[in-house]
Amino acid sequence: MKNHNQTSIRAYKSAGFIEKYQKLVRETVIPYQYSVLCDEAPDTEKSHVIQNFINAGKAIRGEDTGDGFYGMVFQDSDAAKWLEAVAYSLSLMPDKELEATADKLIGIIADAQDKDGYLNTYFTVKDKEKRWTNLLEGHELYCSGHMMEAACAYYEATGKRQLLSVMEKNAEHIYNHFITEKHEGFPGHPEIELALMKMYRCTGNRKCLELAEFFINTRGCDTEFYKKEKAARNWTVWGNNAEDNDYQQSGAPVRQQKKATGHSVRAVYLYTGMADLAAETDDKELFEACRTLWDNITKRRMYITGGIGSTVDGEAFTVDYDLPNDTAYAETCASIGLMFFASRMLENELNGEYADVMERAFYNTVLAGMQLDGKRFFYVNPLEIIPGISAAASTHRHTLTQRPGWYACACCPPNAARLISSFGKYAYGENKDTAFCHLYAAGEVSFENGMAFTCETGYPYGFTVTYKIRKGGNIAIRIPAWSRSYKLTINGKAVNNAPEKGYITIKTDDNDVIVLTLDDAPYFNYPSVKIPELTGCVAVTRGPLVYCFEGVDNENDILSLELCTDTELAVEKTDSTLDAVTIKADAVRKSVSDDCLYTTKPPVTEKCKATAIPYYTWGNRGENQMRVWMTKA
Amino acid sequence: MKNHNQTSIRAYKSAGFIEKYQKLVRETVIPYQYSVLCDEAPDTEKSHVIQNFINAGKAIRGEDTGDGFYGMVFQDSDAAKWLEAVAYSLSLMPDKELEATADKLIGIIADAQDKDGYLNTYFTVKDKEKRWTNLLEGHELYCSGHMMEAACAYYEATGKRQLLSVMEKNAEHIYNHFITEKHEGFPGHPEIELALMKMYRCTGNRKCLELAEFFINTRGCDTEFYKKEKAARNWTVWGNNAEDNDYQQSGAPVRQQKKATGHSVRAVYLYTGMADLAAETDDKELFEACRTLWDNITKRRMYITGGIGSTVDGEAFTVDYDLPNDTAYAETCASIGLMFFASRMLENELNGEYADVMERAFYNTVLAGMQLDGKRFFYVNPLEIIPGISAAASTHRHTLTQRPGWYACACCPPNAARLISSFGKYAYGENKDTAFCHLYAAGEVSFENGMAFTCETGYPYGFTVTYKIRKGGNIAIRIPAWSRSYKLTINGKAVNNAPEKGYITIKTDDNDVIVLTLDDAPYFNYPSVKIPELTGCVAVTRGPLVYCFEGVDNENDILSLELCTDTELAVEKTDSTLDAVTIKADAVRKSVSDDCLYTTKPPVTEKCKATAIPYYTWGNRGENQMRVWMTKA
Repeated sequence: MKNHNQTSIRAYKSAGFIEKYQKLVRETVIPYQYSVLCDEAPDTEKSHVIQNFINAGKAIRGEDTGDGFYGMVFQDSDAAKWLEAVAYSLSLMPDKELEATADKLIGIIADAQDKDGYLNTYFTVKDKEKRWTNLLEGHELYCSGHMMEAACAYYEATGKRQLLSVMEKNAEHIYNHFITEKHEGFPGHPEIELALMKMYRCTGNRKCLELAEFFINTRGCDTEFYKKEKAARNWTVWGNNAEDNDYQQSGAPVRQQKKATGHSVRAVYLYTGMADLAAETDDKELFEACRTLWDNITKRRMYITGGIGSTVDGEAFTVDYDLPNDTAYAETCASIGLMFFASRMLENELNGEYADVMERAFYNTVLAGMQLDGKRFFYVNPLEIIPGISAAASTHRHTLTQRPGWYACACCPPNAARLISSFGKYAYGENKDTAFCHLYAAGEVSFENGMAFTCETGYPYGFTVTYKIRKGGNIAIRIPAWSRSYKLTINGKAVNNAPEKGYITIKTDDNDVIVLTLDDAPYFNYPSVKIPELTGCVAVTRGPLVYCFEGVDNENDILSLELCTDTELAVEKTDSTLDAVTIKADAVRKSVSDDCLYTTKPPVTEKCKATAIPYYTWGNRGENQMRVWMTKA
Repeated sequence: MKNHNQTSIRAYKSAGFIEKYQKLVRETVIPYQYSVLCDEAPDTEKSHVIQNFINAGKAIRGEDTGDGFYGMVFQDSDAAKWLEAVAYSLSLMPDKELEATADKLIGIIADAQDKDGYLNTYFTVKDKEKRWTNLLEGHELYCSGHMMEAACAYYEATGKRQLLSVMEKNAEHIYNHFITEKHEGFPGHPEIELALMKMYRCTGNRKCLELAEFFINTRGCDTEFYKKEKAARNWTVWGNNAEDNDYQQSGAPVRQQKKATGHSVRAVYLYTGMADLAAETDDKELFEACRTLWDNITKRRMYITGGIGSTVDGEAFTVDYDLPNDTAYAETCASIGLMFFASRMLENELNGEYADVMERAFYNTVLAGMQLDGKRFFYVNPLEIIPGISAAASTHRHTLTQRPGWYACACCPPNAARLISSFGKYAYGENKDTAFCHLYAAGEVSFENGMAFTCETGYPYGFTVTYKIRKGGNIAIRIPAWSRSYKLTINGKAVNNAPEKGYITIKTDDNDVIVLTLDDAPYFNYPSVKIPELTGCVAVTRGPLVYCFEGVDNENDILSLELCTDTELAVEKTDSTLDAVTIKADAVRKSVSDDCLYTTKPPVTEKCKATAIPYYTWGNRGENQMRVWMTKA
């Protein structure tokens, strides 16, 4: 079976919670990020992204390259991700001026492409001879992948082919180099695999499919590939360890990999490409490999917030059940990648597990990555912040207490922008006769299969979801695992079918009205007893939202608070600063009398209330203690 | 006031618990370590220590140096620490053969000394020109310091002056270089300061005192000293960061330092020298600086086990209240150094706080460093071990689940050996009219001031301590802070004096019998609410012993156990394998039904018993889960 989530033709006009975020991306993130690309943003590290393309164009024409290349080896991808976000945004709301700006950038990019189709400013400006000699570190395939994604999105949004043509030519060049000439090699940072699948769907060019398959199937077959590649060159970008196959998921052929290892973004980008290819080619063995890796991530290596990659050391997965709160890395991009992976798993199999995780990652880690005003971003999403230790101890340098502005390595902000702008591709899917409602996303949706409906909901704060069918057909609605009870009606009549793998499918006619009512109660969450970090802890969730406790709401001391799990959690009020619903818990506050580290005198306890806010809103009110997992009283 | 703990003349013949350990050192550790020094131990990394001295002797005589130098830049110190342990051991029990072996080694060392008094095999064999050009990394003063300690101890034990003469000549050389010629410089790794204080007390040579004072007072005055030193040389040992003044405690003059920073062994060795100098010279300002640093360590940066230096990153102190259990470094040597520091603080001020910490460090971290059979050693003493994560996750590579044999960097085993063999110097102290009983150490003690008594106790498992006075005088007996109640009698009559700063002083006559009865109840310990790692946790102690829970006693699963703190802990039985008293606690075992990471279903709980063993005995029964801090039910 192949389900389509990432289809090009489906249209989604958002409303409600998502619309607010998409507006923020359109009005704040995209313009700000463009000013960064142009080096016009104040108080920001130089980006030089557009200038790199201009200088590469000069190099192609044999002119002096001016101030040359500046930035990370993967600097080009910032432009790609920005263009992709712009494309999705334009498909939500036309904007002539923005489109003209994007067209101009695309022209600059086209000028930077070499005659043979090669496109990468780092190697074009710095040293053409080094092309394709450092797949381990060079990020050429990574940058091409991102630009392919942008090209497909821009074509789908505007119908304009210029960037798509550039990237078709680039794909052709890559095909010739890797398949026709070399018969070896695979990217140090996977990404192009999933991008080539998009190119294949967008253009129908089978070489793109073949190339994706080649990179996926070649990976890990020669476990000394990078070692030999390193021995054959006399330069390095960062001195990466060519023998650390775990880091780049190359220790075994992908079908034999059992554990999610290494750099977490690389891992989930790879798995996304694998799942995409498995669905496209109906490759059951590859799907099973994806399923094994999926289970390893979601049942052993994922935070309750949908964060993955628990250590800063290599921005990587570690081992099963190793999920520290205070030193968590949990990169925003990794959770975005986990959403990609989930959405491609849904193309193989309609199973609510995937959508549950997609939702967990989105409403918690992905949204937490962005300040509520859209102006600052977290890369790292810890589950505990204690000023004085966080960002201070040498082991906690990465767990910042406040979102900084644009980074030198600017992967997460544009990644969040493109994800939010294309939310409809994750919320909805379809096959020839059914529309899938994976996530609850208010707005109007038209499906490629002809169906159409309007979805009304205040989700994630409102728990009623109404689907007003405009053009009938089968509709498969997800019942999330977190909802202990639910009610589903069609035209006021109860639907009693039990969910199958988390979905209930209903046949609808035009003008039918379906109402889903989900469980709106807040709950305590208990961790597996196998996670050492979490023994004795509870976390609060309501719907898809994981809550956290900040000092500012709790007398600036959450460490001495313990939650009473034998009384009910209360849904409190909407906090106007955060535009979020808060939750109150009965708690006790402990105090230990002496200024000593340890005492045999039991602490004095006092009853009190503790206030929780949604995790995605943390860090928006100044430096502050924060905890997701609290001790139970 | 100056109290003498490290006096040379006092004699202590141990019995009981300490005797058992001293016997282990004498019969197992010392012979094994000697075989390592000679490269005759099986399955052990090459040491080359003695061969280095032999080869250095050849270099001095202008002969070919054979296989040259091998090992760490501080390799010489292994020989010094071994000799020092031998000296203490000989003073406890004469051994002609061992003494002959030591004499032979001393002869080899004497041959390796240059005509000008310089002594260091690394520089002598490798490159004489590099002497004293890399104080940051070179460890020349560190090695000299250790050899000075050995020289004093060996002279005190045997009356033989050869090594002492070598080191007097070496001290003279160092004096000339640093004070007469250079007027600058201080050791990257402090150690010589405390050693020079020993040399001064042993020889009466005021230049040793002056030199200790010079190194202490020069430190941190020029915060660019190491930077300039690095700029002036074209070689490095490890590429240490010359500007990381925190690491080597050189960010400010020592009298202005407020926080214990950097490499924890370096820190406490420095503070030991400072406290020693303060007592010797009655320097109140220096003592106050020591007191500030002492408070920072013991009230903000110390594990309940007396472990210090919470991160592997630089084997260092981090920030206040940052005390992770699972990634703790807590090097054995650092706790030994903390005992040094405490004993020198007691020379300034009779205050039970110092002895309490000394005892905490000894009975927990220091003893845990050694396997019960004396054959294997821990450098790192974590408070939690979970096989699968410990020694497996990249952040936990240092927290081994089993004690390994001899390391390439062999600092801890010989350090533990010399500490255990000289336990009497820490247990007892004196001034001209009073004998101090800091720790409870069975055996016969004769004091320099003429007093003498026999101490009988089964401590740390027996809580009655009997002092049978042989030669009367004042005896100051510590009442430990952990003892909620106590009884003190002289000849059966209650002594009702309240303790002053933790000590009760009694005037005694010959044949008086004093009996101290301490609290033998086990207790739950509660952490400061400011330690994020420990919220909701309790630890069990009895007397000076911190207890831990191992999987092997608890159905191989301690993660799902929670301790009930509302019922009494029960002192159980003596475990014959561990030769230790175990404690039973009422507990509940939680189980979560699904194979998932998080659930809203509250766990099912079942009452059970949990068994605790003394922390110092952990890891003696195979790979195993282990925890000091347990969740309270």
